[in-house]
Order: sequence, then structure tokens, then C-alpha cells
Amino acid sequence: MTDTFVIVGGDAAGMSAASKAKRDDPDLDVVVFEKGDWVSYGACGLPYYVKGEIQSLEALVSVTPEEFREERDVDLRTGHEVVAIDPDDRTVTAESDSGTVVQPYDHLLIATGSESVVPPIDGTDLTGVYTLGSMSDGKELREYVARARDGGSLQQPDRGPACRYLETCTGPIGVVGGGYIGVEMAEALAENGFEVNLFQRGDRVLKGFSAETSERVADHLRDRDVVLHLDAAVEELAGESDVEAVVTVDDRIPVDMVLLGTGVRPRTALAEDAGIERGVTGAIATDAYRETNVPDVYAAGDCAEATHAVTGDPTYVPLALTANRHGRAVGRTVTGRPTEGGDVAGTAAVKAFDVEAARTGVLDHDDAREAGFEPVSETVTAASRAGYYPGGGTATITLTADRDSGRLLGASLASEYGEGAVHRSHAIVAALHEDATVFDLENYDLAYAPPFNTTWDPVLVAAKVLAGKL
Amino acid sequence: MTDTFVIVGGDAAGMSAASKAKRDDPDLDVVVFEKGDWVSYGACGLPYYVKGEIQSLEALVSVTPEEFREERDVDLRTGHEVVAIDPDDRTVTAESDSGTVVQPYDHLLIATGSESVVPPIDGTDLTGVYTLGSMSDGKELREYVARARDGGSLQQPDRGPACRYLETCTGPIGVVGGGYIGVEMAEALAENGFEVNLFQRGDRVLKGFSAETSERVADHLRDRDVVLHLDAAVEELAGESDVEAVVTVDDRIPVDMVLLGTGVRPRTALAEDAGIERGVTGAIATDAYRETNVPDVYAAGDCAEATHAVTGDPTYVPLALTANRHGRAVGRTVTGRPTEGGDVAGTAAVKAFDVEAARTGVLDHDDAREAGFEPVSETVTAASRAGYYPGGGTATITLTADRDSGRLLGASLASEYGEGAVHRSHAIVAALHEDATVFDLENYDLAYAPPFNTTWDPVLVAAKVLAGKL
Repeated sequence: MTDTFVIVGGDAAGMSAASKAKRDDPDLDVVVFEKGDWVSYGACGLPYYVKGEIQSLEALVSVTPEEFREERDVDLRTGHEVVAIDPDDRTVTAESDSGTVVQPYDHLLIATGSESVVPPIDGTDLTGVYTLGSMSDGKELREYVARARDGGSLQQPDRGPACRYLETCTGPIGVVGGGYIGVEMAEALAENGFEVNLFQRGDRVLKGFSAETSERVADHLRDRDVVLHLDAAVEELAGESDVEAVVTVDDRIPVDMVLLGTGVRPRTALAEDAGIERGVTGAIATDAYRETNVPDVYAAGDCAEATHAVTGDPTYVPLALTANRHGRAVGRTVTGRPTEGGDVAGTAAVKAFDVEAARTGVLDHDDAREAGFEPVSETVTAASRAGYYPGGGTATITLTADRDSGRLLGASLASEYGEGAVHRSHAIVAALHEDATVFDLENYDLAYAPPFNTTWDPVLVAAKVLAGKL
Repeated sequence: MTDTFVIVGGDAAGMSAASKAKRDDPDLDVVVFEKGDWVSYGACGLPYYVKGEIQSLEALVSVTPEEFREERDVDLRTGHEVVAIDPDDRTVTAESDSGTVVQPYDHLLIATGSESVVPPIDGTDLTGVYTLGSMSDGKELREYVARARDGGSLQQPDRGPACRYLETCTGPIGVVGGGYIGVEMAEALAENGFEVNLFQRGDRVLKGFSAETSERVADHLRDRDVVLHLDAAVEELAGESDVEAVVTVDDRIPVDMVLLGTGVRPRTALAEDAGIERGVTGAIATDAYRETNVPDVYAAGDCAEATHAVTGDPTYVPLALTANRHGRAVGRTVTGRPTEGGDVAGTAAVKAFDVEAARTGVLDHDDAREAGFEPVSETVTAASRAGYYPGGGTATITLTADRDSGRLLGASLASEYGEGAVHRSHAIVAALHEDATVFDLENYDLAYAPPFNTTWDPVLVAAKVLAGKL
């Protein structure tokens, strides 16, 4: 009798698990319930779709439902919302337009993802208030942009000319939250001629990065005419039926539209109802194999915790690579080859106009101390190519290490777009996974040639400076 | 009584040692003998000077002789050639226009560098045959290019239009050797409108890289109208007084000029005469602190061996970063803080027109087997950015690992210039230094966002494919 592997949720974690399980064991029955219509899509591309650099939502889909069904032999049921899990009976109950089904499972993966956080303030339900968590969110936002630009086709976004240089300026609009989505959408909207106001509760954008990275990105956002409102907690979105203003403790900024980029939270209700435990982060707790406290029930992707490569503690970093990797590991595990999905280092990358930035590891000194380290940080700004080589710019790199052991804890990097901050972060991620010290990093024999870096790559310069302080 | 630290050779290794020693112990007397006039220059930039992208040789100098003397208090004696070392008396003898000096030392660093190899064939002394090992070589070559282009100022090299598109084509010229210098000079000359013939003894350019990298670079060179002559050992340079043709076993190609890019060898004669031993590679042997068999005599940079991070064996990789790093370590060691300069991974990077490439570690299977490994290699070509993101190209990545242990042995990468092959190699270098396996690499939490890579960075794709074969 064939085993059945049931998956709840058809995005990165779920479909990676489905594909891997089917590839490794073609006899396994794999059933995926997805409540929406889209599966296996790159939500990370939505800002570029809204911006107009990507012409169709379909382009964000890596594998279509038809391909999953026909080529990969996955029993994919879109439009099916799972409403209950019964671990004793080993069944899930799913509802669709055509009724209710009870599906038995031998192995179950919960891959319900995350949802946009809507802050608990008045006015978030006004017309013209958007989030960007789903494909339909992306579609609505793009339609808004196209309408606001008088039916402009968005085939060719206005790159460069900011609002003040255009004959007619669109907006103003408000972006609430200075994280990835906030920063990427500030670019997407400003490049379309909108006057963008970015509201950040704290004193800097990209708070998970180093202060120096935040400052570099903030300076660049201002250069591109994004109006930054820092230390500006939003108290209310004001308006009658359409949103008309963003109200902060100090100010009232008129807006035509608001995008909420105030983070995400794991979707855990279904799991909790079935007695599946959440961890300290609030996301579903799992072991190294992504198995929950309930045998044969796994959780992966944005709904689940992961283990931090530096601290060894549970962490919640809802990003695409982890979802893919942990989903794939579960897909292997259920076919009889137990596979750990690996730890996460909290790595992330973002582009803001012509600046790129990456972060990895533990940067916050309080967090580092809580994990038992004595953090020391240094920041350097160094030429991104040989000084005499044409073009190029600078890389600003913050490194954090433990004072006693020298162990590398984290890094934050920024450069002009194309000057390598993000790809350079790869080396530091490797060092973090290997528990390397800053002295080790300082001695890595990194590639050098004038078109790519200085003899000592900026990463090595940063390591040298930090090593000198320990 | 103050110690005296004497250094023979004033380029990367020598001047790094001088600067570091003076900084760490300002009381130390530091005497540097340099037989030429230039010190501390970036020979790696010479192709770009010849090309015309850099306007003065002085731009390649990181610290001037005056700065060393006045700001760093280094007793730098240019125009002084050291002709003998007496380890018993602990002196060196140097000759200059003003006579002979005998200089006592407490610590001695031999940093005599490398010299261009001139192949043992007829005609290498003809007019119009050049090498590119020194600043004066660079000056002569640039003057040749300017003359050949009818006194063109080289302020703005012709980027793009290859010879066949120009009204008057210059050359043809021959480049002998398809290593870094050969490839970089092919670019420099072709971009100036020369018809370039590149002669390579073996069957591919960049033989230290993977075959797939070589092929990608070769295809691109051909796209840019460089005529590749592979398996074309040069038997003679023909001509009366000026070089007129490159003669291979099969062919006779008329040329106006020839550049020899046939490698370098360590300058060891001075050391050998003093009883300092060379290692298996032919370069000066040292311990981890760069100390030779003669106490208090160190060797660093292009004249010396280093230890390979993967094999643990002596290796000869004459490149700038190692010279800087080992020189600096010696500078620290002689001030009483014994410092290892670190191992090398044999990492190198090169740009050829609009392609970039990097290599690191052990790629050759015979070399790997000799070091006790059972090598397995896989090559993938993957999108360098998200498929839906505009621009971008592909990264071609070869990974080699040991079959039994999975230990990563080496990598070779190529991409369009700016698409990250070189900066991505940094992660693999880190993995090599940490003795990581391909399974470790596969699980690194590398940064991802659509403008920079796919969810699985090409490095992870390559790791995944290779891991699947072990």
C-alpha cells in the first residue's frame, strides 16, 4: 500500500517538498491543498512587477499548476482551504467550492506561510490602503499605479527622473515601514513618478542591518527624493472612505494611497488548533528535520521556526531560500532519507534604487550578549575596485565578532548596485556557518584583480580592522 | 641598541613588511633596498594602463618613495641592487651609482619577486617583442600602442569596435600565452583596434581554470575578434631586426609586435648564493612564518613558496594578495609578535572584455589524486539574477569535491562582467579554508533577492548538483 504525503500550502516550502518527494519516490502519493489559485510563485518579485520591470504575474511563477499535475504527477488541488487537521485520525479536512473532503495522510507538511501584519490603528480598512503579501495584492497595486499614471502601460518605467522633475507629479503616497518591502516599494513607486513618504517607527530604515548600512541606504533614498519620516510611529490613517492622510505623533501628511510594509507573521492557527506547538518566536516549533511535536507532521517555510547558525537558538526568518530548502528536506525525509534542512544565518539582501545591501548573522549587540557573546563591531568604507580602475564605488562593511574568541557573529554590507555588497556577503555567511573567527576571515585567499576589488578585498579590510581591535 | 630590519625588494611584500614593522615598532630601523625606481606599485594594473583606461603609471603606485621616507620613516634606498647576503656576518651588500654599501641586519626579508619567463626560442630579442612584468615594460608597451595608433592619446580607448569595423586596422600583433596576462592584454590591444592573435601551447586558455570556464572565455574572446591559436606551441619569432612573424608548428602568422605572456618564475639567485634553500616548486622554501632555513632570514611574495589551504603542500602562486599578506606578517613577526601569513587557496580572478572568471583550490584531477583525494566535478550554468528580473546573464560554475568525504576541493566560475562570478567565488574560498564539504556549502544561508540571484544562488545550485553525485 502506497504512502500518502499531504501538504498544506502550495508556495515555496510546499511545492519544493512535493517536487522533491515525487522525484525521490515516484510511487508516493503527494496531495497538495492550496487555498488560492497561484502556486510556487516568487513573492520577492512583486515589487518589480508593481514597478513595471516585470510585465506579467505569470513571470513570477516558477512551475505552473499544470506542470505540477502533468509533469510531476502531484495531486495539486488549488482552491482548497484546509480547515482542520486531526493527528489522531491522521486526516486533514479541506473545503472548496465543490464541498468538503477528508484526506488521510501518512506524512503531513504544514506550509501555510505568513501573512502581512496590519498595524492595530484606525483607518487600515480605508480604500487606497494596500499590503504586498500575495499575488492579488501585487495585481491590485499595479492596477493602482497604472490608474494613477493615467493609464500608463508601465512598459517602461521612468528611471531616474524623480517626482520633482516631472511635469505632473503623482501622489503623494505613504509607505509605512522601512523594511525590505518598504524600501523596495519606495523605489518602485518613486521610479514611477510618485512622491513617496516613508514612515518608520524607529530612528532608521532596515533596522536589522547595521546603523551604517541604514544610513547609507537612507541617504540614497533621500537623494532619490523619497521623504523619510523617522521616529514617526503612525497613529492613524485618516480619511472618509478613501485614505487621505498619514497621521503620526508629530505630523499629518496628506496622501492618495498607503502601502503597509509592516512585516509578516506566521500563519499558525490551523496547526495550533491541532495541538501543534509554537516556539518562542511564535512560529511553529520543529526539530532539525522540521518535524513538529506531533509525529509525522512537519512544518516548513514562513509558518515555522528555524535554528540560527550562530546562536543555535530558534529564530524566525521568513525568507524564500529557507522555505525552499526546508521544504525540499522534508520531501526527502518522508521518502525515507532523513535530511536536515540546515540552519539559517538570518541573511537578507535588498536593492534600493542604485544601492544594494546585505546582512547576515547577529548584529544587534543586545541579541549577541543574550546569546552569550561579547560583541565588538567595526565599520569600514573601502573602494570596491582598484583605486586606479575606472568606475567602481565603495563598499561599507560592518563586521561584528565576539571579543574573547574572535568568532565572527554577523555582518552588514552596502555598496552601489553592482559593486558587490550582496555577493561579497556570501563569504561571511560561509564563515558564520563554519564558526570561523575574524582572524580566519582575515586570512582567506579571496580572488583579486583590479576590475573587481582592491588587493585586500573590502571584506578583508573590514576583517583586518576588526581583528586589530580584539 | 635598536634592531635593524633589512628588506631586499620594494614592491608588495617588501613594503608591506616595512610599513607594518615600522607601525608596530617605531624604534626599529627599517632599511629597504630596491634596485629600480618604483616601489609599492600594482603591476596588476599594467594591462589597464596599456589599454588607456589608466592615464599615468603613478596612479598604480599606492605609496610613493617620499611617503615611505618622510611619513613612514622607512630608510628606502632606490637604485640599490643587493648583490650578496652573508648570513654568518648578518650583512647584505648593495651596489648603487654611488658605490657599494655593506648593511648589517638583525632580521632580513628577501622580497625579490618574480621575473617574466622568456621562452627558449629564437627571436625573442627582436625589436617589437615585449613582456609585461615591470613598470618600464608597461611604459614601453603603452608607447608602442600610442605610436601604432598614430600618436593617439589613448585618453578614450575604442571600446567595442573591433579591428574589422575600423577604417584602419592596426597590427596584426601576437600574444604568446593564454594566461591572465595574455587574456588581459588581448583585451587591452583589441580594444585599441589591433588585430590580436593569441597563441596557446595547450588546447585551452586559462588552463588553471576549469575546461568549461576556459571555453566560455575563449568563446567570448572569439566574439571580440581575438584570433585564438590553440595547440599552437610557438617555435620561433621570425624577423630581421623587427619581429615579423610568429612561427608555430603548423603556421606562420605575420605580426608587427609580440607580447610574451608566458608566465613568471621566482627570483631566487641571490638567496641561493647565500645558502637559502628552495622548495619543491623552485621558489624559496619557508615555514609558516615565512622564515627560511637560515635563522632570521625571511622570504615573502613572488620569490617564495606558500602552503596550499586544501592540500597542505607547498605551492607557488605568485599573486598580489599573498605578497601583501605574507610581507605584513613578517613585518609583525620581526617586531616580536610571531604571525603566520596564512595559507593560499590558489585563488585568481581575471576579466576578459565583458566576461569575468575566478578559480580557487584544486581543480585538476591529477593534482587532486596526488594530494590523496578522489575528485568528482560538476559544472552548472544558472541564471545570475531571478529569471524575471531585467538584465542579468548566467554564471557557469564548476565545483570539485572529494568523493568519499565530500570535502570541497576547488571551483571555477565565469559570468558576464558584473554578474558576480568573482565575488561569488569568495564563498567557496571561505569554504576551502574551513575544510567544508559540498554538503555544508549546499546549506549555506546565502543572501537572496531578485536583483542579485535566484532563490538558490548559482553557487548553491552547483553545490546541490555536485552533492547529488556523491
